[in-house]
Amino acid sequence: MNAIESLVGEFARLPGIGRKTAQRLTYHLLKASRDDARRLARAVERVAAEVKLCGACGNLSDLDPCEYCADPRRDRLQVCVVEEASDIPAIEKSGNYGGLYHVLGGRLSPLDGVGPDDLNLRGLVTRVGDGVREIIIATNPSVEGEATATYLHRLLGASSDVTVTRLARGLPVGGDLEYADGVTIAEAFSGRREM
Amino acid sequence: MNAIESLVGEFARLPGIGRKTAQRLTYHLLKASRDDARRLARAVERVAAEVKLCGACGNLSDLDPCEYCADPRRDRLQVCVVEEASDIPAIEKSGNYGGLYHVLGGRLSPLDGVGPDDLNLRGLVTRVGDGVREIIIATNPSVEGEATATYLHRLLGASSDVTVTRLARGLPVGGDLEYADGVTIAEAFSGRREM
Repeated sequence: MNAIESLVGEFARLPGIGRKTAQRLTYHLLKASRDDARRLARAVERVAAEVKLCGACGNLSDLDPCEYCADPRRDRLQVCVVEEASDIPAIEKSGNYGGLYHVLGGRLSPLDGVGPDDLNLRGLVTRVGDGVREIIIATNPSVEGEATATYLHRLLGASSDVTVTRLARGLPVGGDLEYADGVTIAEAFSGRREM
Repeated sequence: MNAIESLVGEFARLPGIGRKTAQRLTYHLLKASRDDARRLARAVERVAAEVKLCGACGNLSDLDPCEYCADPRRDRLQVCVVEEASDIPAIEKSGNYGGLYHVLGGRLSPLDGVGPDDLNLRGLVTRVGDGVREIIIATNPSVEGEATATYLHRLLGASSDVTVTRLARGLPVGGDLEYADGVTIAEAFSGRREM
């Protein structure tokens, strides 16, 4: 296969990128300076070579322990449990959370054959034993995410020293009540707070 | 900058890829096997290193002359003039054309400061002198593409030996008359053919 077709093929394997977009990206790289293309190649290569799982929390990082686990200013008594490492930047951007993280690497999904043994749970149980005060469960508000949260609550809630919390569900800020789905509105009602 | 942020940044420089998509692609590469990422890196590197302009037609290819110019089965008396190398795969896919190509590398656009000297025109004039019978102008049906076509017609039509043609304009196949714009419908009327 020639170089152009081969790159179109590789781009088209990425999620959400069809053949036409893959072609557009390839020709863009050819029209842009070759240095741009080389820089992209090096960045991809570097990610493949350097990024690993943080031994403490399961985050993806080029450091082990990762930047959050290694940061002495972060609150070691709070651990926020997320499904994927890619959830962390979204939480960091919200600018409100200063504790540590724990990445499960997925969510319970019997239909896809994902059970408790496929998740990064052992480390979490150990951390709870190490004196963590609060586990904030931030799995996705989906069926599988809820099932995972319930499972974690049962698993960790048995330890009397730790408080297990779950992110609030309700109307998204900037959303429109008219277009919100019934389940979200019901959650927003049951979770309503005094003003 | 760490490896993940640096790749997100490089992806986000590509056209049509915003920061969120760049993040999604990066984490996809991290979740997929490292070999997938390395293959992408190599494909990008290879395109940067191997692809060059065909000396005869200006196409982008890892061969010089390119696969079309080198193919003895193609009709050397027909040359199809396109704006960009990326237009060629679309024409090839239509499966109807068996001649050669000529890539201008852009279109006349005084507002963007693109004049005749910025296009790959010298080679085209030489090729016409070499006994080409028909020049098919396949610039885009845009204002700039039309201006470029008119310019090429004046430049090449002076040679009495060569026929200069232009791709037909009209209703796109599968399109809807109701939603076609007025200029297209007018072109379809003026270009109507006896059934």
